[in-house]
Amino acid sequence: MKEQRFLRACRGEDVDCTPVWLMRQAGRYMEEYMAIRRRHSFLTMCKTPELATQVTLQPVNRLGVDAAILFADILLPLEGMGIELEFAQNEGPVIHNPVRTEADVDRLKIIEPEEAVPYVLEAVRMVRRELAGRVPLIGFSGAPFTLASYIIEGGGSKAYLDCKKLMWQNPQAWHRLMNKLAQVVVGYLKAQAAAGAQALQVFDSWVGSLSPQDYQEYVLPHSRFVMESMKEAGVPVIHFAHNGATLLELVREAGGDVISLDWRIDLAEARRRLGADVPVQGNLDPAALLAPPEVIRQKVKKILEANQGCPGHIFNLGHGIHKETPVEHVQVMIEAVRQFGCRQE
Amino acid sequence: MKEQRFLRACRGEDVDCTPVWLMRQAGRYMEEYMAIRRRHSFLTMCKTPELATQVTLQPVNRLGVDAAILFADILLPLEGMGIELEFAQNEGPVIHNPVRTEADVDRLKIIEPEEAVPYVLEAVRMVRRELAGRVPLIGFSGAPFTLASYIIEGGGSKAYLDCKKLMWQNPQAWHRLMNKLAQVVVGYLKAQAAAGAQALQVFDSWVGSLSPQDYQEYVLPHSRFVMESMKEAGVPVIHFAHNGATLLELVREAGGDVISLDWRIDLAEARRRLGADVPVQGNLDPAALLAPPEVIRQKVKKILEANQGCPGHIFNLGHGIHKETPVEHVQVMIEAVRQFGCRQE
Repeated sequence: MKEQRFLRACRGEDVDCTPVWLMRQAGRYMEEYMAIRRRHSFLTMCKTPELATQVTLQPVNRLGVDAAILFADILLPLEGMGIELEFAQNEGPVIHNPVRTEADVDRLKIIEPEEAVPYVLEAVRMVRRELAGRVPLIGFSGAPFTLASYIIEGGGSKAYLDCKKLMWQNPQAWHRLMNKLAQVVVGYLKAQAAAGAQALQVFDSWVGSLSPQDYQEYVLPHSRFVMESMKEAGVPVIHFAHNGATLLELVREAGGDVISLDWRIDLAEARRRLGADVPVQGNLDPAALLAPPEVIRQKVKKILEANQGCPGHIFNLGHGIHKETPVEHVQVMIEAVRQFGCRQE
Repeated sequence: MKEQRFLRACRGEDVDCTPVWLMRQAGRYMEEYMAIRRRHSFLTMCKTPELATQVTLQPVNRLGVDAAILFADILLPLEGMGIELEFAQNEGPVIHNPVRTEADVDRLKIIEPEEAVPYVLEAVRMVRRELAGRVPLIGFSGAPFTLASYIIEGGGSKAYLDCKKLMWQNPQAWHRLMNKLAQVVVGYLKAQAAAGAQALQVFDSWVGSLSPQDYQEYVLPHSRFVMESMKEAGVPVIHFAHNGATLLELVREAGGDVISLDWRIDLAEARRRLGADVPVQGNLDPAALLAPPEVIRQKVKKILEANQGCPGHIFNLGHGIHKETPVEHVQVMIEAVRQFGCRQE
């Protein structure tokens, strides 16, 4: 049953216990991860299937989560498109040739995943072999908007001014860019599914910078294309629009089998707005893992209570885990999900 | 009528035209501001009533906005509390003795505004004289949570981990800190009103980092204390919880005469949730002022249409204006508010 817990919840089916995993569960908060990270660059780890496999399995072995998520980065497919990507020490991603004009957009290539990111697909196959059915493997991609924001801004951003300027000043170039990115995302996700990923998450990490009106006009059609195209892949797709509480209805309209919620919205309120039959994922504030164990337990309990035992709930954080998190606190969280989120016999 | 437009809208009364002003309307996007800024530090400008008055009046003279907002900074009252504050070049505020323990909280002093920030109050009096009734003057303060976040984190923050840690690990110290800050905010706002400020805005700029549950438990009682205490000051208070779309009902519960909205929520949806009788302010994406004039006009029109001509709407941005904004685009915005937001005779 445990093997199927996560996938059943994705489909809104009954489960013995609410499944749980954590966004960015393989990462700097774990000593076993740091032991590898100290010897290899982040990008090397992504591009070496043995290393990616090893860190993907760490939280499964250590924490007993109900799903593995592939160790990778949402920007990996961009290199094959012609984007010069670097992960600068402590500064996050830097893109040396940001996209600002229609000509820049025209130069971007649509990747063939087996050529552009063979190491990701090899890691998927390797993780599946190593997992041997213990828990399902989740693959993932950035959503078109979030990828666009990086390649236009040249990295992370506070206000996304260049991104929004292109969107408003040159909607034609914008839509061509989003269209290309959507095609890349679909190809990339399908290749992961073909390689063995049993579920897929689409991260629209920065889309919460947009008004609902702009989301509807400039983003939704492209996210919908991704979600519609993925139906034929036959694996559930989780749609995560971070800081997107006001976009929920539009995100549902764009599609996806599961809607992932950040911590800014009460889960019961989100379910009311989405409709009770839409499976949801979330939604503990990742900062809460720095709170004392008793506070963590209370917060887990409240989220599970907000769900009222409805099928179709995957417990998760509302965003990626912070590197300052004590592993023991993650264990407290998972134990609390088991304590309060299992069916009473 | 123009003199009263803004204040009438704050009270939900009928107006000839929707009043308009911009958060951070005196600032780096204006050449006349930069001419002064190049000769003085930011803090010197705040602490010199003649300079603060001069820049406060610049957008009134140049743009014809319906209200002036005092040039000042939300962190100014902290110095008198014992906080060592510095505005580092291009880095924003830095606090050299962040508050992390109960003993740190105990050391904080409750300020007497006439002693701690006499320059702010003198600037209020000076601006009122210079305005000579042309438009009303808005004073302001940070909300307790936002001030707490700065003094705990030691400056700006991405995830507010130290702030949240204190909140969860030591709720007693947290509430004592918030209680002190709330008292300071009330004293500071009342002093501004006594000096002549005709309306007040409370900025809870970073409260959108909290879940509704944490807002309710750790913030709402203190913001409510501020709002309740301010009733006797007899001037309208605008309550702005940035990125607070999921907190709207709780923000209304905390109080304030006007609720200020960021751009992430449709204004009509916000009015439905708040109740049609609650005056609102907002809510153009400040980045939209970098869009072409025609896009700005359309966006202004949509916001005014979303309000459907109801009384109690003040047009504003959803957050502070960006320094990259062309002044001409601000003028386009204001002209559009006049074109689409005036009563048809």
